[in-house]
Amino acid sequence: MPANPKQLARRVYQGERSGIARAITLVESTRQDHRRKAAGLLAELGSLGAREGLRIGITGAPGAGKSTLIDCLGTKLTRNGLSVAVLAVDPSSTASGGSILGDKTRMSALVRNPKAFIRPSPTGGFQGGVSRRARDVVFVCEQAGFDVVLVETTGVGQTDILVSGLVDIFVLLVSPGAGDDLQGIKRGIMEKADLVLVNKSDGEFMSQASRTCADYASALRLLRSRRQDPDGFPVAMNISALEDRGIQGTWKHVLHLAEWRRQQGFWRQNRQNQAVSWFKSEIDERIRERLLADEELRARISAQEDRVRSGRLHYDAAAQEIVEELWSRVGQERVSGSQSVDNPQQAAK
Amino acid sequence: MPANPKQLARRVYQGERSGIARAITLVESTRQDHRRKAAGLLAELGSLGAREGLRIGITGAPGAGKSTLIDCLGTKLTRNGLSVAVLAVDPSSTASGGSILGDKTRMSALVRNPKAFIRPSPTGGFQGGVSRRARDVVFVCEQAGFDVVLVETTGVGQTDILVSGLVDIFVLLVSPGAGDDLQGIKRGIMEKADLVLVNKSDGEFMSQASRTCADYASALRLLRSRRQDPDGFPVAMNISALEDRGIQGTWKHVLHLAEWRRQQGFWRQNRQNQAVSWFKSEIDERIRERLLADEELRARISAQEDRVRSGRLHYDAAAQEIVEELWSRVGQERVSGSQSVDNPQQAAK
Repeated sequence: MPANPKQLARRVYQGERSGIARAITLVESTRQDHRRKAAGLLAELGSLGAREGLRIGITGAPGAGKSTLIDCLGTKLTRNGLSVAVLAVDPSSTASGGSILGDKTRMSALVRNPKAFIRPSPTGGFQGGVSRRARDVVFVCEQAGFDVVLVETTGVGQTDILVSGLVDIFVLLVSPGAGDDLQGIKRGIMEKADLVLVNKSDGEFMSQASRTCADYASALRLLRSRRQDPDGFPVAMNISALEDRGIQGTWKHVLHLAEWRRQQGFWRQNRQNQAVSWFKSEIDERIRERLLADEELRARISAQEDRVRSGRLHYDAAAQEIVEELWSRVGQERVSGSQSVDNPQQAAK
Repeated sequence: MPANPKQLARRVYQGERSGIARAITLVESTRQDHRRKAAGLLAELGSLGAREGLRIGITGAPGAGKSTLIDCLGTKLTRNGLSVAVLAVDPSSTASGGSILGDKTRMSALVRNPKAFIRPSPTGGFQGGVSRRARDVVFVCEQAGFDVVLVETTGVGQTDILVSGLVDIFVLLVSPGAGDDLQGIKRGIMEKADLVLVNKSDGEFMSQASRTCADYASALRLLRSRRQDPDGFPVAMNISALEDRGIQGTWKHVLHLAEWRRQQGFWRQNRQNQAVSWFKSEIDERIRERLLADEELRARISAQEDRVRSGRLHYDAAAQEIVEELWSRVGQERVSGSQSVDNPQQAAK
């Protein structure tokens, strides 16, 4: 691990590949000493001039063709002189076949592209933390100066909604015939989508793809309050990543939407609200992290959880008991004079 | 305020009106001494034999006709010998014209019905806490032995999604012509809905109402994974609360869905998961409550928030600073020997 956050921050800011990779590994790490360094790195990066890329979330069930789309779109963007970072945020993607090694091989063009940076999904699977880290990884990529940051999620995990909270534009990729149950895509996703792309709109799928697209178009009309959208948005359209059809059009839509939101002030507003909500959830997560660093406590909580689940204990009483226990422990820790503020492991013991 | 939680719990359990009203006022109160008593009351109620009513959430924009529907449906239910509690959970409803006094006058039949209990929405508007209290109020009503608990939200606040997490069945009420922007109903609501009722399907609105219903039906087909639903659900149907059309049919659907979920085990599963998530969020909320009872801290947090919003400070560094401050304060409190665990005011000072 790099010794000095300040140095590493500078290397990232200069867009140095190995530095970026290291920085991401650092912010993704759950090791306490790494967490401390990561905090330092993020502060350093924050102190450097703020850079803003275009953050695009791309979600879709495994097999929808996300990698093919990203390979195709990313290549076009680099041809237009834009630098592109590709991040996969949910470990679930590994399970569901979207594993990044897989992606890397599938993104055959992009992976060899000097203006593109492809980042494997984190292997650590600790809940919620995934999105928390993703937030930081996106920030690292932006400060590294990438013009476009593509954030990929599988649409089967819990991360999608969270990811929609850390991008500027959210794209849902579906297959033709997405019928009664949205191909396993989690609830709420569609209402976050700015664009719904019906992929594989080619060959034999063509007519089915058109029907699917029409279905999504009408659903989107019902779902979205349009305040933050120009006329015609959210858009549902047919594309074929394989045959490179509709990709250029997709990008045009993205740019149009981005430009419109900038002019209307929604862009800035959205970024500011995202930062504030990250700040608040970061406070909650850090508090929880510290308090739950104590194994005994974790065990007690899951014991209480079982009693609540089985109806043997009322949730309110159960929670009160836990919180009082937490307090007495924090107290003991402080009384025992441990001043460690950076190390939850110690802090809660 | 009642002296003894045990006594009050017994009065509630016996279904004594004044006792129920008092209990609800108590659990809705934000005063610290009340919060303590409320915790005692909930524990007492929990220790008594668990009762289960049918919890139905009814959401819809102001003017959709929630009160008329509840008046009509509730009256039918009481005629069938069922006791009914009606709760309005979001203070926002007051602002948006759904104020309960308004409701009470609008629910002209139900308000005079001895088998019905109508509860005004809480006047306290403190964020998130609303749903937290709503949880407890629903619990009080169930333990009071009501067969059906109708929870009303305006569909414009943040509470809807939360409310969908404390009911067994969630109903969305819309007006004919709910078109491009769902009449201001928040995102995500429709995907929670088990039934979408297109109200005012009468007179001149008839044909428009049918089109609206068809639109919702197709949207619902796209939105929902059906695992927890029998064939045909979620349902979109036309009703007229004013002319009492479709209300009986609505109830049939509700009973069918409830029965099916009971048989499939989803009912129990859902209740258990709800209890566990309440337990967890209650822990978080109690921790936050305690830590933020300190005014200086609240001020510092909002100051940091401004800096984060304006981009002058990175959210991660901002959060770290706050959490370290919190810890040192909790530590001081403990060192100073205050053993108060029930009183956030003291606890954080």
